[in-house]
Amino acid sequence: MTKPPRLPLMTPAALQALMAETFPQSAGIGEIEEIHAMGAVVRHRVGPADLRPGGTLSGPVMMALADYAFYLALLAHIGPQPLAVTTGFGINFLRKPPVADLVARATLLKLGRRLAVGEVKIFSAALAEPVAHATVTYALPAPAGAHEAEQPWK
Amino acid sequence: MTKPPRLPLMTPAALQALMAETFPQSAGIGEIEEIHAMGAVVRHRVGPADLRPGGTLSGPVMMALADYAFYLALLAHIGPQPLAVTTGFGINFLRKPPVADLVARATLLKLGRRLAVGEVKIFSAALAEPVAHATVTYALPAPAGAHEAEQPWK
Amino acid sequence: MTKPPRLPLMTPAALQALMAETFPQSAGIGEIEEIHAMGAVVRHRVGPADLRPGGTLSGPVMMALADYAFYLALLAHIGPQPLAVTTGFGINFLRKPPVADLVARATLLKLGRRLAVGEVKIFSAALAEPVAHATVTYALPAPAGAHEAEQPWK
Amino acid sequence: MTKPPRLPLMTPAALQALMAETFPQSAGIGEIEEIHAMGAVVRHRVGPADLRPGGTLSGPVMMALADYAFYLALLAHIGPQPLAVTTGFGINFLRKPPVADLVARATLLKLGRRLAVGEVKIFSAALAEPVAHATVTYALPAPAGAHEAEQPWK
Repeated sequence: MTKPPRLPLMTPAALQALMAETFPQSAGIGEIEEIHAMGAVVRHRVGPADLRPGGTLSGPVMMALADYAFYLALLAHIGPQPLAVTTGFGINFLRKPPVADLVARATLLKLGRRLAVGEVKIFSAALAEPVAHATVTYALPAPAGAHEAEQPWK
Repeated sequence: MTKPPRLPLMTPAALQALMAETFPQSAGIGEIEEIHAMGAVVRHRVGPADLRPGGTLSGPVMMALADYAFYLALLAHIGPQPLAVTTGFGINFLRKPPVADLVARATLLKLGRRLAVGEVKIFSAALAEPVAHATVTYALPAPAGAHEAEQPWK
Repeated sequence: MTKPPRLPLMTPAALQALMAETFPQSAGIGEIEEIHAMGAVVRHRVGPADLRPGGTLSGPVMMALADYAFYLALLAHIGPQPLAVTTGFGINFLRKPPVADLVARATLLKLGRRLAVGEVKIFSAALAEPVAHATVTYALPAPAGAHEAEQPWK
Repeated sequence: MTKPPRLPLMTPAALQALMAETFPQSAGIGEIEEIHAMGAVVRHRVGPADLRPGGTLSGPVMMALADYAFYLALLAHIGPQPLAVTTGFGINFLRKPPVADLVARATLLKLGRRLAVGEVKIFSAALAEPVAHATVTYALPAPAGAHEAEQPWK
């Protein structure tokens, strides 16, 4: 009645090469630390542009990191389909992150043919507890040959 | 730099007595199965009112179960404060639940003085993978003696 | 470059008959007040089961009402397809609702072939400002004859 | 029983000066177009860094814009309190945005003493219908002199 978790189809090195080719702006968002069954770990190196009033880090930087970590976990399991698109994203900020690197741990909760859903916990390198928790939904591109009506944005 | 997880202050039996007294309608939502550090497990026994077209279960029944499981996890850790109120709730439905009991596993991710945030995974008794994933935010009542301006709804 | 808003395909009376046939439990959730272009208005008559500690109304009752109002707005515009299913739902509670009827105003923001997205504002009959704001996402059933792989839950 | 909508306390020029001083990185996120009762309109000028595979725009750029538009609407109504922080954020992407400027319209739905909640519709300069819809929750800083326990992050 239950299926075994799916294993990644792409290695970290293959994903990194794909990102360099199709999404070069991602270099500033995060670096792949780990790809594992149904998940990915991505590190954002903190920089001056991330700082915000009150000695904390930018919320949208955490949003971009969570979205990117989920995207990498997803592509690792469905293969190089850069046209997968975010359809829904939610985040709760849990603690004020100190000025330190951020590490996102993305987990796929559902990997269907049309939709993928998961959660991402964001940790600070300087704290044990998570600083933010996100949920992410992606629409998956139609298989080659499908009718245009199947494109996720329709 | 990190704090140990907080332990429950209330036993399952004490919580059940509190619910019977302050929230008798909860009997139809779920039964406490377990209270543990920063979490709770609550079972909803499936009944005819839960059935929906297509041989599946009501989404709002899963929402009510997730909210209740989080509420129990929260009260277990802050003590009998029935005036804690949900301020935000989000849920992603992952798989079509078969007609079987539902089990919600709630985890507190943050337990502050004014806000508590957590996640709830809902499982079907007939599937290994979760059927829904929820996030919940509660505003906590002001401590006794606080100024009226501190009430969560203000 | 822009399309005119779609008009409803079903009248309130036709929707009510469909609900009585396919979803009889909905009678306790709400009554259709209005169907208009890209929207629906649904009233929940408050009853003793809705009351909660502190003289307020159940959050999950508001969730069920928001989901149902969106479902009616959707079916009014796509026709009788009861197998459309909620895939995502989020709600923010804005004000403590007094003990009075609730009125949900659902608006379709996107009506695609595979996904529909909208928002619902919930008002109290006793207040001018909304008491809750919800967002809802539904997956739409595949057209007749489509391959099983197109079902929303896959 | 109902209160009139609150009027802005700060002009667009005063907000712009505050942003230049306390949040200089915001210049790349958007420009204030309008401040009105319970709302703000902010434009993001599209640039090469926003482009994504498939001829579309970055999702996280839309998230940052929505969060910033809400922040400006909020500060306009509570005055210069840069330490207000996002506690929750959710977004649904509705349509593939073409390569054109983005305009965010933020509306405050609740402006309490401790929490503010609102919604943001994001439009493309090249489409009539919204391309994304976000909801935002902010915790407000405690009034000067309040006990440390009242800080939003506690």
